[in-house]
Amino acid sequence: MELSELDLVRGIRRVLSGDAPGVVIAVGDDAAVVEPGRHHGVLTADMLVEGVHFELGSTAPHDLGHKAVSVNVSDVAAMGGSPRYGLISLGLSDAIEAAWVMELYGGMREAADEYGMSLVGGDTSRAGRAVVSVTVYGEVAEGMAVTRSGARPGDALVVTGTLGGSAGGLRIARDAARHHTEALSTEWGRSLLAVHERPRARVGEGRALAAAGAHAMIDVSDGLAIDLGRLCEESGVGARITIPDIPFAPGLVDLAEGTDVDPVDLALHGGEDYELLAALPPGDVDEARRTVVERFGTRLTEIGAVVEGAGLVAVRGDREEPLEPRGWDHFASR
Amino acid sequence: MELSELDLVRGIRRVLSGDAPGVVIAVGDDAAVVEPGRHHGVLTADMLVEGVHFELGSTAPHDLGHKAVSVNVSDVAAMGGSPRYGLISLGLSDAIEAAWVMELYGGMREAADEYGMSLVGGDTSRAGRAVVSVTVYGEVAEGMAVTRSGARPGDALVVTGTLGGSAGGLRIARDAARHHTEALSTEWGRSLLAVHERPRARVGEGRALAAAGAHAMIDVSDGLAIDLGRLCEESGVGARITIPDIPFAPGLVDLAEGTDVDPVDLALHGGEDYELLAALPPGDVDEARRTVVERFGTRLTEIGAVVEGAGLVAVRGDREEPLEPRGWDHFASR
Repeated sequence: MELSELDLVRGIRRVLSGDAPGVVIAVGDDAAVVEPGRHHGVLTADMLVEGVHFELGSTAPHDLGHKAVSVNVSDVAAMGGSPRYGLISLGLSDAIEAAWVMELYGGMREAADEYGMSLVGGDTSRAGRAVVSVTVYGEVAEGMAVTRSGARPGDALVVTGTLGGSAGGLRIARDAARHHTEALSTEWGRSLLAVHERPRARVGEGRALAAAGAHAMIDVSDGLAIDLGRLCEESGVGARITIPDIPFAPGLVDLAEGTDVDPVDLALHGGEDYELLAALPPGDVDEARRTVVERFGTRLTEIGAVVEGAGLVAVRGDREEPLEPRGWDHFASR
Repeated sequence: MELSELDLVRGIRRVLSGDAPGVVIAVGDDAAVVEPGRHHGVLTADMLVEGVHFELGSTAPHDLGHKAVSVNVSDVAAMGGSPRYGLISLGLSDAIEAAWVMELYGGMREAADEYGMSLVGGDTSRAGRAVVSVTVYGEVAEGMAVTRSGARPGDALVVTGTLGGSAGGLRIARDAARHHTEALSTEWGRSLLAVHERPRARVGEGRALAAAGAHAMIDVSDGLAIDLGRLCEESGVGARITIPDIPFAPGLVDLAEGTDVDPVDLALHGGEDYELLAALPPGDVDEARRTVVERFGTRLTEIGAVVEGAGLVAVRGDREEPLEPRGWDHFASR
């Protein structure tokens, strides 16, 4: 990379700066200064690393920027909170061009606009591989934050949207990198790819589920099975999932046709869908479902129930078998 | 690295968790939840990358953790703020052992305790090189934040502590890595090394300078000359620095003896001292100096003045020459 840090900082300031609600001092000083909220603060940070979470050659920087913001916002959404401010630390290798960085920031800015938040600062450094580290500060009304640890036996388990879409899209992207794939010329193929490249955090849905009385909530980032396992472990409970009730992403069944792809496997263990999984009192499910579909056009599906004990069980008709809380581990070899 | 993400998260939780003032929900959920402050929020993020900011072989992980927190706290201090919460995103290569990560977190925890802040969350990921990305949320009373852009002609330029110590310590560390160096067996040598390995952010001093009416402030992270240049550029002013007034770090003159090291060069361009540079009305300097030394035992030295126009001038007796705003650029080749 031929840019000096000063050049980069100037370019980035052009992309990020501008007056925004609550921002007192924005990008360009030692730190950003923001107005205090009346609500509790919600803080989360996530890092995307080249070669682990994305490849330079096959990832559009605009999509990457959008996704880096979205995965953090998703964590805020999973607490029932709303994002307010974001900070970005970038590590850039010599292989990266200035245009790439500007497109990355463009994607971040677009995501920030969509989520109604402001990007207020960050840091840029040389690094061996590209690293995109994002922190989001959000807000949640006092007493309204939904943790992973409040699920109770008898609660219904509900999930927003559909599952397996990102894993399906990743499969298509990898096929396309190696050889021609029919999927890219189909509507369902492009739809799956879009889920993978542009996941949307469920901010409004998270707030609605919190307001509906969710006892526990988590975002499905590493896969339904592993994230449900985490929620159950933190809550000291078990869960039964009714496999035929799991909502498949549109196109997942088309993708599976004539291949070795198992839609159930992708939906359970695929990861990166960034849907919300919540434990709700059964009596509150109907109203929550109505609210979420009416306000946000998002389906909410009951896929099982919280039970006493520990461990996950997968139910298909009369058959019951243990469900391994396996997902996408960042440390597992690919 | 043989650890799974879950193992790591558990280990890290043991190091970081615990009740702390203002922390409603700490490490281990989708995000942390903190109480709202009455004051404005101060947000900053900084990334340290293996091979750029540190070497695995020659950096103690405990020191690295301490430093990663300190450099962020220093940015908050440079606004006149106080740190409250920190988030840490780690990228870990296969070469890194679990013990290294635990020591890194130990150093972060120690720094957080020293600065009276809480580490509330973060993220761990695989990466090609070690990456330590820290975000700090701090607070500053409304209207009390000191930017880089308020310096006015006639202001005195003051600096906390001493300069050149970190660059001197880095020199000793590099010498020691190659061959035996006498410096390590001397008190001054160890003192310089300590400045390099364990810089301290000037939180109290920054608040005192803000309260004393500082018009502008910046932390000296990349070198006095370049950081002064940034402050002047943002303020639309120039500056004159009286070279003999620059306070050298203890040991810097000893280090220079019989070598090609120029203490003035290290003090002007060395970087990583994390002292504060402020523009103060001249009438307020004496009281600020008294306050800072009485409350924190830190010296405050007047090293020059803000002038109209642009650019930096170095004054030595009757001689005046332009001072290049050159420092430690993260993108420059080493």
